[in-house]
Amino acid sequence: MDNIDFYKYKDLVELHILDFLPEVDYKSITVYEAMKYSVTAGGKRLRPSLLLAACEFAGGDIKNAIPYACAAEYIQTYSLIHDDLPAMDNDDIRRGLPTNHKVYGEATAILAGDGLLTSAFEAMNKDMLLYFDSDMQLKRRVKASYELAKGAGCKGMIAGQIADIEAVNKQCSKEMLDYININKTAALIVASIRAGAHLGGANEKMLRDLTDYAEFLGLAFQIKDDLLDVTGIETDMGKMPGVDKIMNKSTYPGCYGIEASKTKLKELTENAIAVLEPYYDEAEFFTNLANELLVRIK
Amino acid sequence: MDNIDFYKYKDLVELHILDFLPEVDYKSITVYEAMKYSVTAGGKRLRPSLLLAACEFAGGDIKNAIPYACAAEYIQTYSLIHDDLPAMDNDDIRRGLPTNHKVYGEATAILAGDGLLTSAFEAMNKDMLLYFDSDMQLKRRVKASYELAKGAGCKGMIAGQIADIEAVNKQCSKEMLDYININKTAALIVASIRAGAHLGGANEKMLRDLTDYAEFLGLAFQIKDDLLDVTGIETDMGKMPGVDKIMNKSTYPGCYGIEASKTKLKELTENAIAVLEPYYDEAEFFTNLANELLVRIK
Repeated sequence: MDNIDFYKYKDLVELHILDFLPEVDYKSITVYEAMKYSVTAGGKRLRPSLLLAACEFAGGDIKNAIPYACAAEYIQTYSLIHDDLPAMDNDDIRRGLPTNHKVYGEATAILAGDGLLTSAFEAMNKDMLLYFDSDMQLKRRVKASYELAKGAGCKGMIAGQIADIEAVNKQCSKEMLDYININKTAALIVASIRAGAHLGGANEKMLRDLTDYAEFLGLAFQIKDDLLDVTGIETDMGKMPGVDKIMNKSTYPGCYGIEASKTKLKELTENAIAVLEPYYDEAEFFTNLANELLVRIK
Repeated sequence: MDNIDFYKYKDLVELHILDFLPEVDYKSITVYEAMKYSVTAGGKRLRPSLLLAACEFAGGDIKNAIPYACAAEYIQTYSLIHDDLPAMDNDDIRRGLPTNHKVYGEATAILAGDGLLTSAFEAMNKDMLLYFDSDMQLKRRVKASYELAKGAGCKGMIAGQIADIEAVNKQCSKEMLDYININKTAALIVASIRAGAHLGGANEKMLRDLTDYAEFLGLAFQIKDDLLDVTGIETDMGKMPGVDKIMNKSTYPGCYGIEASKTKLKELTENAIAVLEPYYDEAEFFTNLANELLVRIK
């Protein structure tokens, strides 16, 4: 990412990423270490950065959105830890490092995922308690937390995960492929942006526009990842390319072909940018981010 | 349980236990079926019943506490599904039925657990949105949700789980045994009672008394379970007895001996009852429940 604004958000996430994990004592330190290992293992911090950006875009103070940004990243990280388990995708490498269960064993990795998911809600709930003297601020926080719960839930990320698992080794329809990616990848991206928008006090129109942007971006993001898996040296996730094919995963290039996938990526990116055009320079961060998805693909 | 009040709460939980799982479409129905399988597989509904009882004890309307009661049971059920996985306790039978992964496979069982944990917070968050016109009711709900998040989290249930795993095959100190059981078992019981107390509008004194009661009860409950594993035909959880020894788990009978464990169970039960004595008949439900822990043990 060459986008300077992106680093502003990403750096803030990096600075605070451990702040909302509960302090444990030595008797349960292993699960903390395992959680810490995965949340500090790099990654683009896309979801929390989008959350912060949406909060600022809507006129809010991003400092107050940090617990929610970190919660979004905890949720994303938990999903990767569980997704990498032998019973799931059985991945050894994530973001260029050994996966959580390769380092800590399966039992601890399961608990580390559970711990991150729970910590996300614990962090947001705890933050709400600080705003009991401001009715408006409290309500914004409840709405933000609900967005992330929905995005991570059974009509969001988990729906995508189960459909993805069941599609392995099967001929996947285009409808099912969209369903998987809208839920597995886009849902938490949409939820993060909506959470940030609520925190910043976005009106209905802005919330709808940001949601539309996020839906286009989320799907584009997955197509880029699929394309990098086929064409790239290494995907953005630090995994070796070609994994999807080995796993017989349903992908855009597999379903539509590489050229048609590139076209779809371009279209989605243009659509994402078009949605926020009426906001001109105010939306520059979102526009630049969408454009950067096309880099290394053209 | 012979306690009529207990059935009042338990029946209410049974009636609504599926109400707060998100409605999924056919493409992700498997994870819903797996979640439904485990949440409807029986069990005492101890935590949600205690939550409802605490709410009523504090003067609240239990109907409004149902989403939180079900959330507590979703959290309990998720922890059992993950605990039973091959990488954890590797149990085939739970509550007299095949464990989740035995029916649905490991990948789906992991996701079903994740789905239940997320649904718990989604349900509570969604409920909060219904109380935006009542500042007091909204705050009570935020506090209740925070109690369950903490109880389920890395300074609660997950701390107990990781310590329990690490204690397998090791000589376990009495201090560590208490740590495991206070966190693994008692934490969510305490959290459920405190959540109910908040929902009912308990004052500080009542909240403290209920917390003390719950801490005694939670530990007593685990000792009873350990004793049944050694002495019973089948434990309350529908598992075969003797499993803990086979697993080389740290237990009270293993650490203190059977007779000393029975004495400790009796003491804890008496302590639990004593805490709520000042409330006389108002605390009858809690007193009866504690007394019933001694049945089949004497």
